Amino acid sequence: MPVNRQLKLARRPEGRVSLEDFTVEANALPQPGEGAVLARTLFLSVDPTNRVWMKDVPQYMAPVGIGEVMRSGGLAEVVQSKLENYAPGDLVFGMTGWQDYCVLKPGGALGLAKIPTGLGLAPEKFLGVCGPNGVTAYAGMIDVAEVAPGDTAIVTAAAGSVGSAAGQIAKLKGARVVGIAGGVEKARKLVDDYGFDAGVDYRAKDFRAQLEAATPDGADILFENVGGEIMVAAIARMNPRGRIALSGMISIYNGQGGTRYDWAPIMAKRLKVQGFNLIDCAELWPRAARDLAGWVRDGKIKAEETIVEGLTKAPEALNMLFDGANVGKLLVRVA
Amino acid sequence: MPVNRQLKLARRPEGRVSLEDFTVEANALPQPGEGAVLARTLFLSVDPTNRVWMKDVPQYMAPVGIGEVMRSGGLAEVVQSKLENYAPGDLVFGMTGWQDYCVLKPGGALGLAKIPTGLGLAPEKFLGVCGPNGVTAYAGMIDVAEVAPGDTAIVTAAAGSVGSAAGQIAKLKGARVVGIAGGVEKARKLVDDYGFDAGVDYRAKDFRAQLEAATPDGADILFENVGGEIMVAAIARMNPRGRIALSGMISIYNGQGGTRYDWAPIMAKRLKVQGFNLIDCAELWPRAARDLAGWVRDGKIKAEETIVEGLTKAPEALNMLFDGANVGKLLVRVA
Repeated sequence: MPVNRQLKLARRPEGRVSLEDFTVEANALPQPGEGAVLARTLFLSVDPTNRVWMKDVPQYMAPVGIGEVMRSGGLAEVVQSKLENYAPGDLVFGMTGWQDYCVLKPGGALGLAKIPTGLGLAPEKFLGVCGPNGVTAYAGMIDVAEVAPGDTAIVTAAAGSVGSAAGQIAKLKGARVVGIAGGVEKARKLVDDYGFDAGVDYRAKDFRAQLEAATPDGADILFENVGGEIMVAAIARMNPRGRIALSGMISIYNGQGGTRYDWAPIMAKRLKVQGFNLIDCAELWPRAARDLAGWVRDGKIKAEETIVEGLTKAPEALNMLFDGANVGKLLVRVA
Repeated sequence: MPVNRQLKLARRPEGRVSLEDFTVEANALPQPGEGAVLARTLFLSVDPTNRVWMKDVPQYMAPVGIGEVMRSGGLAEVVQSKLENYAPGDLVFGMTGWQDYCVLKPGGALGLAKIPTGLGLAPEKFLGVCGPNGVTAYAGMIDVAEVAPGDTAIVTAAAGSVGSAAGQIAKLKGARVVGIAGGVEKARKLVDDYGFDAGVDYRAKDFRAQLEAATPDGADILFENVGGEIMVAAIARMNPRGRIALSGMISIYNGQGGTRYDWAPIMAKRLKVQGFNLIDCAELWPRAARDLAGWVRDGKIKAEETIVEGLTKAPEALNMLFDGANVGKLLVRVA
């Protein structure tokens, strides 16, 4: 008889996350009520926001409480359905949490969504480039930054799942795209694999000079995932009336660096700085996912995944995001 | 024979501005070339941006150079015209500078604009509520903050020329409007004279508590003129997806306070923070000025002026903005 392993937050981690910050329980399977499904987790989506949810600070959702199952988006297979139009075997996206089985029901962008089949795409693409990460990239680059032909766009954490999609979307829309990533290899990959116009290594000693050389006409868009000194360097390159799509500031999530930055350039250059988040994208999601799936299928957007094996590796996997150790979408395979 | 008194920047003031920061010269009248007019300055517009122009820091226009006539918008009467459609006696708005006479020609939002007559409005209104200040308020509240019925809008420096117009525009558009100003009298004036829903005195000991009480449902819009602790207090009241129209940060212009503020709320609350400036409003200006003139004529928007007498009082007048000593539009009468 199957059991449901659950990772429950035992304490709020400082800095790096480890399995010791959780209790691992083996419990009975939950029962879905009317209008819900029981689903088995196949993949967990590992995202910077997981780290924020562990912290007891003001944020866009309530933090995960001590003793609660760690919150996470994931890809799951329906096992039992008490919800119209859902049947065992259906693949769904939802807030699975760090556990083997979960009860999901519709509601909001992160509630429950059936993953389309027959598009010739591996289902895990819908956890990344055709799912939350791609939709985030789409929302930021198209709706927030309003990318247009002739723009120069800087993308930080550009080798990541959101960043690589954001840069490729900007290219598709006619922009010059400069990516910032950690290490020479990743910087080269941006150009060779993702078709960026330039890749800049933020670990290089002459990082600022490289960025300046890569943006001879300044930048009209900054798609920002990182914060900290990298963001400051990118803002220095912004042209008047530039748009900063603030997708995240991963540099601050696990306590590195501060959150105070200069507002004077916002005024002097008449910049638009806009924070945005997937939780506001329920309306956008279907249009974005359809466009993204088409682009991926047609080879116009490439996406990679880094897969870590095993539910109990989830805490460790989360650190990889902050170490820059993953390429593309980071997933944990659960079943 | 008339002479042209000119105030030329002699040194870059630190903190308060005084006449000693300028040389006062009496020169011959300039001659207008083809396509330009010679005009006699009637009123100078005194604006926070004048103070920024005196500083050798990166900004949206070049700073005024040492030895150059101090830059300023103003209302002037055409004396001699070599420009089609302009004749002696016409009233114009343009970059007069701190001097008795100037040569003006068309070009850009701040080049030269004829002031309409026959609307039953005093010409100096076109230096304030129907001119640069009103257009700034209009641009920020309507185009940037996208005010809509049901919004709550906070306006800082609300008793000033831009702020009082911004608040009244928001009221016209169906918002609940809370103004922040210095002193009990000004705070009351916002409600009694300008029709705001609430006025809060930032000098009060319980300022934050007052602001909280005045925004029981939080705020969707912040029209920001001040920066510093007042801005920080207002941002704390912002609702998710709020819009901050960053018109200015007067608290930092003469060297008080820093320019570093928290970016975490931008991310957590998915705020839009947008700097904007009149120099980008050439296209908007005619529509805005027409709407504003109509509202002022119909008594839907009230505007006051504080008039300081005499060209050489301009440096001193500028300090009044930072002391909060003026009500409404601050002008210097030159002729």
